[in-house]
Amino acid sequence: MSLLVVGTVAFDQIETPFGKSDIILGGAATFIGLASSMLDVKTGLVSVIGGDFPQEHLDLLIDKGIDISGIEKIENGKTFFWAGRYHNDMNSRDTLATELNVLENFQPIVPEKWKKPEVLMLGNLHPLVQKSVLNQLEERPKLVILDTMNFWMDLTWDELMDVLKDVDVLTINDEEARQMSKEYSLVKAAKKILEMGPHTLIIKKGEHGALLFHENNVFFAPALPLEDVFDPTGAGDTFAGGFSGFLAKTKNYSFDNMKRAIIYGSALASFTVEKFGTDRISELTEDELNDRLDVFKSLTNFDIELD
Amino acid sequence: MSLLVVGTVAFDQIETPFGKSDIILGGAATFIGLASSMLDVKTGLVSVIGGDFPQEHLDLLIDKGIDISGIEKIENGKTFFWAGRYHNDMNSRDTLATELNVLENFQPIVPEKWKKPEVLMLGNLHPLVQKSVLNQLEERPKLVILDTMNFWMDLTWDELMDVLKDVDVLTINDEEARQMSKEYSLVKAAKKILEMGPHTLIIKKGEHGALLFHENNVFFAPALPLEDVFDPTGAGDTFAGGFSGFLAKTKNYSFDNMKRAIIYGSALASFTVEKFGTDRISELTEDELNDRLDVFKSLTNFDIELD
Repeated sequence: MSLLVVGTVAFDQIETPFGKSDIILGGAATFIGLASSMLDVKTGLVSVIGGDFPQEHLDLLIDKGIDISGIEKIENGKTFFWAGRYHNDMNSRDTLATELNVLENFQPIVPEKWKKPEVLMLGNLHPLVQKSVLNQLEERPKLVILDTMNFWMDLTWDELMDVLKDVDVLTINDEEARQMSKEYSLVKAAKKILEMGPHTLIIKKGEHGALLFHENNVFFAPALPLEDVFDPTGAGDTFAGGFSGFLAKTKNYSFDNMKRAIIYGSALASFTVEKFGTDRISELTEDELNDRLDVFKSLTNFDIELD
Repeated sequence: MSLLVVGTVAFDQIETPFGKSDIILGGAATFIGLASSMLDVKTGLVSVIGGDFPQEHLDLLIDKGIDISGIEKIENGKTFFWAGRYHNDMNSRDTLATELNVLENFQPIVPEKWKKPEVLMLGNLHPLVQKSVLNQLEERPKLVILDTMNFWMDLTWDELMDVLKDVDVLTINDEEARQMSKEYSLVKAAKKILEMGPHTLIIKKGEHGALLFHENNVFFAPALPLEDVFDPTGAGDTFAGGFSGFLAKTKNYSFDNMKRAIIYGSALASFTVEKFGTDRISELTEDELNDRLDVFKSLTNFDIELD
């Protein structure tokens, strides 16, 4: 089994300058799974939903070839709900509602057949929840990727530091990298964070792209300059799904292949922001993805011959 | 003659979190000239200085092979002076003093031998001053590049629009592109600005790199992630000097060659920020520049083979 993902499967309601969504499918694991499924990677989700979660959303995941046997349904509970409003610049947002519901007491259970995944993607959750998934595995995955956020740095620093020791790749945004390292320079921040456990750090900079740090190597992946960002929700998770899915598929964890994986993640994320929620990524075709990968090539590739 | 530059030659005094400089050599034309001289391009400056301008600064420019015959010295005047203080993030700054002095009545005079330049670089100045240089030329240069700033958009919009009609390449930063186009999306902003005259637009994003727009093509050049930015003053002008110098040297104005030119500009600018003012760029060696160009290659180049 290739890619095991733990994370939220949720309801979102989103307001942007372009409009307001209904209560729609969201959640980190959802976006990660939809992205990796585009790469034909056998992907399993571990998550929790309530009795209010409609079958059509599960059918979407099943249709994409995603294994949902690790999604626990608590019939008398309600699905995790998040509502937010994006500002005019689309880079900042206010949270209007966070109802943890079934997520509050989430105890992930890894299905038997998923206890030896090639790659493990730990979506943004309480570090103890992330740790408990690692502990249930029978073999250490070839690559463990962890996503987290400032909330856990503020409230569960020690637990975060503990799980980080078992992680290969950490993904955070630039402000979180600065908070975590107490360094403004992202290069200095990366050096400090790479001493906390992971051998690789990805700093997500939204519309400014992403930086990949590994030992003394740095790679800079651009974000696609877009006419309009319609809804940024899920872009970071789509990115993580493309990155982890590409590596699970190719089983090559070299720096050069991580560069390719980041480009796949960036290309996939550039679709997610084009429509509300999962609307764009779930209708995406392989041809569209390949065309966009070509755009990414021409966006940054240049040739300079030095004497 | 290859590259004609009009712009300021000035005194700067700079405060950063790392320290405070003396009153040192600054000015857009200074940085542009020093950058282009690294590429062995015959460069001529058109500017104005006061009687207080020390010969050692002129000697530095002469030593670099820069033609200073277009720098007018007004013996009973004082050289343009700017003082500023950078904030802790090094991305924003306060202007502490701006003394225009001899710049106030600057009437640029292009020397006879410089009236047929291959490339013209119009540094950030009043649009009428930029226009008067264009009007003095005997032949239109192969490429005219113009740098400007929000100050001229606020105060001299009509004059700016007028000179822009005669310009090939405009360089501004992201906030200025938004102000100029009244569009938040940089892609939309670029489309509008490219209808104002220039066929090519470079949007400088500081630590986030630069975007090159030309017709329907986009190129994204990264900035080098640095441990410390010591002093950002002059980085944008160094970038412009590398860009315009590379094009004047290679005489190839294709999109592919402009991509190379932007990488040269970015690489040169990454040195300028390492020390106060011109200290780093004026001691730079060709080997150091070539090494850094290699770093830029590995920073963004990747290979993905699509079916």
